[in-house]
Amino acid sequence: MAKYARSPLAPEAFPELPVIKGARFASHAAGVKYQGRTDVMMVQLDPGTSIAGVFTRSLTRSAPVLDCQAKIGGATDAGAIILVNAGNSNAFTGKAGVASVEAVTSAVADIMETPAARVFTSSTGVIGEPMKHERIIAALETLKGKLDENGISDAAHAIMTTDTFPKGACATIDVDGQTVNIAGIAKGSGMIAPDMATMLVYIFTDAKIEQSDLQDLVSAFTDSTFNCITVDSDTSTSDTLLMAATGASGVTVSHDTKAFRDALHDVMLDLSHQVVRDGEGAHKFVTINVTGARNNAQAKTHAMAIANSPLVKTAIAGEDPNWGRVVMAIGKSGAEADRDLLSISFGDIVVAKDGWVSPDYREEQGAAIMKEPEITINVDLGLSDGKATVWTCDLTHTYIEINADYRS
Amino acid sequence: MAKYARSPLAPEAFPELPVIKGARFASHAAGVKYQGRTDVMMVQLDPGTSIAGVFTRSLTRSAPVLDCQAKIGGATDAGAIILVNAGNSNAFTGKAGVASVEAVTSAVADIMETPAARVFTSSTGVIGEPMKHERIIAALETLKGKLDENGISDAAHAIMTTDTFPKGACATIDVDGQTVNIAGIAKGSGMIAPDMATMLVYIFTDAKIEQSDLQDLVSAFTDSTFNCITVDSDTSTSDTLLMAATGASGVTVSHDTKAFRDALHDVMLDLSHQVVRDGEGAHKFVTINVTGARNNAQAKTHAMAIANSPLVKTAIAGEDPNWGRVVMAIGKSGAEADRDLLSISFGDIVVAKDGWVSPDYREEQGAAIMKEPEITINVDLGLSDGKATVWTCDLTHTYIEINADYRS
Repeated sequence: MAKYARSPLAPEAFPELPVIKGARFASHAAGVKYQGRTDVMMVQLDPGTSIAGVFTRSLTRSAPVLDCQAKIGGATDAGAIILVNAGNSNAFTGKAGVASVEAVTSAVADIMETPAARVFTSSTGVIGEPMKHERIIAALETLKGKLDENGISDAAHAIMTTDTFPKGACATIDVDGQTVNIAGIAKGSGMIAPDMATMLVYIFTDAKIEQSDLQDLVSAFTDSTFNCITVDSDTSTSDTLLMAATGASGVTVSHDTKAFRDALHDVMLDLSHQVVRDGEGAHKFVTINVTGARNNAQAKTHAMAIANSPLVKTAIAGEDPNWGRVVMAIGKSGAEADRDLLSISFGDIVVAKDGWVSPDYREEQGAAIMKEPEITINVDLGLSDGKATVWTCDLTHTYIEINADYRS
Repeated sequence: MAKYARSPLAPEAFPELPVIKGARFASHAAGVKYQGRTDVMMVQLDPGTSIAGVFTRSLTRSAPVLDCQAKIGGATDAGAIILVNAGNSNAFTGKAGVASVEAVTSAVADIMETPAARVFTSSTGVIGEPMKHERIIAALETLKGKLDENGISDAAHAIMTTDTFPKGACATIDVDGQTVNIAGIAKGSGMIAPDMATMLVYIFTDAKIEQSDLQDLVSAFTDSTFNCITVDSDTSTSDTLLMAATGASGVTVSHDTKAFRDALHDVMLDLSHQVVRDGEGAHKFVTINVTGARNNAQAKTHAMAIANSPLVKTAIAGEDPNWGRVVMAIGKSGAEADRDLLSISFGDIVVAKDGWVSPDYREEQGAAIMKEPEITINVDLGLSDGKATVWTCDLTHTYIEINADYRS
């Protein structure tokens, strides 16, 4: 993970995450694949913790994802464990992969005295290689001994693969005069595309909330956060978002509690942007706003076509205000468009309107905007009021370097 | 165009194309954008020539494409002209773009004494910049003077943009004891994706064939040739395939003439493969065969998901037999798949079957195959008998170089 320099788009520092009462974290260097770094993290959650989850829609999803998915919504009285390893995704590993999940979850259940039905595992890393689950199992007693309510920052490090920085976000809010905390961590920088959370994300709160309410919020907000980012249009077989609400604050919230909703959405948006900011080889953080589409779904189709176009992404890498490629991407997206009603701006600069280059536009203006590390592309289709915003990064030599050499 | 070296996947030499009686070609350096090279080509076709066309489905298609499309199927008694320029695509140029097409076609009609309804123009190059059509018009008399039935090879050079080699293919066949010739040229190396011909292609034959029969054949064969290739998943606003049958051989064929069908299909397949072989930055020519899908359409969806995946394409660039990324691409394609019925082979080597790495597979075997310049990936889904084959290339540093720097 130290092979590539910290992304130039990374936040200045990892945030100071609040303690979430009822959740304890441990990390360890189990040597599943990587050497000289932590690669396993465990979270112990108190009895009564509600857990919600959103998972990849890939039809080749991994054994741990299938296991996790099946466990969402179970009884909460016995507490729960989340166990994550980096280095091997245990994806496309056949029956042996299922056996690995069973071996790990039953060992965790024994050692942590928690029902296997409340043991949630995730694995991230190489696809299709046998999982050395015995190394994870051998680390469980050590992990148990290290559990600490201050361990979340170390946990964010332990789940990294090609990430160049650990990702965290938090909120502390007031609900009827009482304090509620939210803290989340994420990993992900490649194989990122918008069909579910597209990475590993773990969010914790000390709020007390029904599982069904928590699931509603997490599912809804995933659509406008993690499902609106893309690095390379590729969708992982392992994507998992788990959210745990321990209730340890004693403060009850529901899916209607505005302060909680807003804070959770902000934490999810922040984490999703950090994943784009750590997009493999990224030098530019790009926001794409589409308005005036026939409806919101069509707006998102256009926005994603722009965000996933290799020609748009390489133009951004080359700091070229090549709005012609934006036109091309709109044309191929499959959603409705009228060439002669299109208008496009880069930042505040209108580059094209009414189907042609804007008469006031000068190339120097566009070029100046493209030099910025953060770029906004606005497209108005002039058809109706559908809109969408998605986030992506540029496509650079470093992306090729990382991915032409990942396994060797 | 001399900026990048000739693709390592290029054919050894441009083929010797047969003369197509009834078709005369001219090329000229009109200086539309490029300096020091030919950039305009004209074809004069005898009265009686049938013309068929297939065009981009982009919703932002260019003014010349819209004009061309509208003219397909018109009366053939007056002959026809095809005029093509490189350097400027006259796409997304608003009303001025339409005026440019009108100016060029009416000037051609005057000088060549051909109805404007039989003047077909194509433009390829940068999107959204004003077209200097006066430079094309100024070259028309010169082009007229250069018309030559041996000029097709020079024409193939004149239409190049980022191409590193000119593309030609031909067939000479026997139809009931008489000779029929087919000769085609193409350009294209980036913005190549499967939603119509995705480039410029001009094919000529001296066979006599009804326009509707010719259109049937060209449309059908486009689906299994040009619509089965992809370089970067991006679809041009200007893609055009025109086929002209002069009838000058006196040999009548129909859409049922097997020798003609087969030869035309082969010429189209050859040209489409040459476009992939000149894919921007390509070092590997990749054939992807999908079998065992629920139906042919789903097989093509899977094949294209593999062919367009940046992670698969960078793995191929890195000569990494990373079949896990093939699994990933199948999982995200949206078409039906059962992880545990999948089998994958690279060339003759079975790498994965029954949802996991093949017990006989050794990494050195896969690595050896990946070193070849031509690679075949076979995927069997084990569901039913749907199948498809598509062709693509790898994603390399040179693609980034070319496209991060195209306009400057």
